[in-house]
Amino acid sequence: MSDCYSGQRAVADNYYSQDIHGPFQTVDIGDFELESGGKLRNLNLAYATFGTLSEKKDNAILFPTWYSGTNKILELAYIGEGRALDPSRYFIILVNQIGNGLSASPSNTPIPFNAAAFPSVTIGDDVRAQHKLVTEKFGIEKLALVLGGSMGAQQTYEWAIRFPDAVQRAAPIAGLGRGTPYTKLLVETFIEAIASDPAFDGGWYADKAAVQRGLRRHARLFAASGFSPALYTNEGWLDLGFSSAEDFLRGFLEGHFLPQDPNNLILLARKWRDHDVGRNAGGSLKEAFARITAKTFVIAIENDAFFPLKDVAAEQELIPDSELKLVSSDWGHLALFATEAAYRETVDGYLKELLAQA
Amino acid sequence: MSDCYSGQRAVADNYYSQDIHGPFQTVDIGDFELESGGKLRNLNLAYATFGTLSEKKDNAILFPTWYSGTNKILELAYIGEGRALDPSRYFIILVNQIGNGLSASPSNTPIPFNAAAFPSVTIGDDVRAQHKLVTEKFGIEKLALVLGGSMGAQQTYEWAIRFPDAVQRAAPIAGLGRGTPYTKLLVETFIEAIASDPAFDGGWYADKAAVQRGLRRHARLFAASGFSPALYTNEGWLDLGFSSAEDFLRGFLEGHFLPQDPNNLILLARKWRDHDVGRNAGGSLKEAFARITAKTFVIAIENDAFFPLKDVAAEQELIPDSELKLVSSDWGHLALFATEAAYRETVDGYLKELLAQA
Repeated sequence: MSDCYSGQRAVADNYYSQDIHGPFQTVDIGDFELESGGKLRNLNLAYATFGTLSEKKDNAILFPTWYSGTNKILELAYIGEGRALDPSRYFIILVNQIGNGLSASPSNTPIPFNAAAFPSVTIGDDVRAQHKLVTEKFGIEKLALVLGGSMGAQQTYEWAIRFPDAVQRAAPIAGLGRGTPYTKLLVETFIEAIASDPAFDGGWYADKAAVQRGLRRHARLFAASGFSPALYTNEGWLDLGFSSAEDFLRGFLEGHFLPQDPNNLILLARKWRDHDVGRNAGGSLKEAFARITAKTFVIAIENDAFFPLKDVAAEQELIPDSELKLVSSDWGHLALFATEAAYRETVDGYLKELLAQA
Repeated sequence: MSDCYSGQRAVADNYYSQDIHGPFQTVDIGDFELESGGKLRNLNLAYATFGTLSEKKDNAILFPTWYSGTNKILELAYIGEGRALDPSRYFIILVNQIGNGLSASPSNTPIPFNAAAFPSVTIGDDVRAQHKLVTEKFGIEKLALVLGGSMGAQQTYEWAIRFPDAVQRAAPIAGLGRGTPYTKLLVETFIEAIASDPAFDGGWYADKAAVQRGLRRHARLFAASGFSPALYTNEGWLDLGFSSAEDFLRGFLEGHFLPQDPNNLILLARKWRDHDVGRNAGGSLKEAFARITAKTFVIAIENDAFFPLKDVAAEQELIPDSELKLVSSDWGHLALFATEAAYRETVDGYLKELLAQA
């Protein structure tokens, strides 16, 4: 008699905790200088691992988180016996990006760098920090696979371009190396939905619960383009036990975002908005992608309104050893949550095919 | 040395005037009871006509406005010598829907029914009021064509269902007879973008300029799904003389909405959100559409994120003597503005074909 969906956690005060997202570990990778000129002291990265690292250290998979997600949703959605990410074969590292509330974030950093004073972070910073984790903590020189969805795809592209020798295979799912003016506009509306709440107070709210109107607005904007319109027409939420669109929007979307910290979400959204792998190659997207040596499967979700198929396909053509793979779902971009068996099977199939290649 | 786009009018204090939207006429159709139970006294409808009504009164075309539009944009975008809506052949009536600032609206109604106290209006109210205009002012019993885009399509469906004998042909463009939970969610985000501005004050702002933050937020949400993502990728605004995405968003979108009245926009958006032709037939969409006797061309814009093609096509199948016609444009839903020659030619072709049928 118990349904488990994130909405039920909305009442929890300890959202960013082992209770909700564990088990995970943290590691202090030391002081860390950011692209913005800022600096994070004793940068803590939170991660979870599955499986055993082989003696040759050649079976490691890195999977960074997406916007507002943690290691937990990646574990639930993508890891399992018989799946592509099978812990009996691979050593899988799920790493939480900076600002997601588990790794160093506005919500867990002491004064004076707390809350709205937390420095600006880029996807490039995340990837450099993750590289330290992978090489210094685990001694891994080459990852068998780097993959990620959405902001995780942004990190995957950055990995393959910045550290080509460390990435044997890459699977960016539903993401872009450089956002278009459309994706920037869209993400800016998400930021503005929260920041425009008077209770946000420039990020200096005393209690995140006071910002609930902005967080709810943000959740609904996210829902409007995050899912395909077909999900609403076909009432796809019935399968998850929601009784109506309104019940789904409150229970699933508002339930997901309300327990999260507004400054954390805005930090993540700015990373998402501003990411551009071209800055690794003097602004040239073409030159940046040309640096990728990994065998790459670019996995695009049809009817993805966050990262439209046409834009994803245009980038894939710039990547040397790459193939475009498609998956279709009423869930649109948020098919990434892998609530649908068809999505899980299709994406697992692509990942198995990729992992089987030399 | 003069560009003409709506953004240049943003500085005008007299936005809802003959200077900007004229020439138009107004007619008082008397006291008018609304579906909501409210009542509009001496309801004024603003309209513009083109061409001459034939002696048999069999060449009349009715074209109601869409969200935030007036007769002027319809005139500029759809009427002309040699076009489908050719004033040398047809008597064309462009009618402004209730609440658009020219017909009776929150912004132009005296106390006590002014501003936020203006009663709720439905698309059905508009169509009943327009029917009085058409029959009582012009003595027209049967319209050769009713057409409209977006909320104009909502009115077109309502006309064809409520007054089947009065509609010989119908061309709903980019609209639905009944919104899906998706369109309701989307329109609600537009409303909320304005209403959440503290300066909106429940609709009791002293000066609409004070609500500019909410109006700008609304403009950007509108832009995010109103255009196809391809417009942003292909920088479609360059053809209109805008220099960048930001210049386009400010000049075109914010320029369009900033001079408009927040209460007017919200009244229109609620009509849009709540429309459902099924209420004419005890809630049955199927029975409602079965009442249509007009020869109907359902014109859908591919990649329309306001009224998705699949949803439009599903309704078309319920309409007896109908055909689905497609038009494609990077401009997405807002292709309706007919800034593209290809859109104009395609839609004109469909309308000419429809008008040629008995």
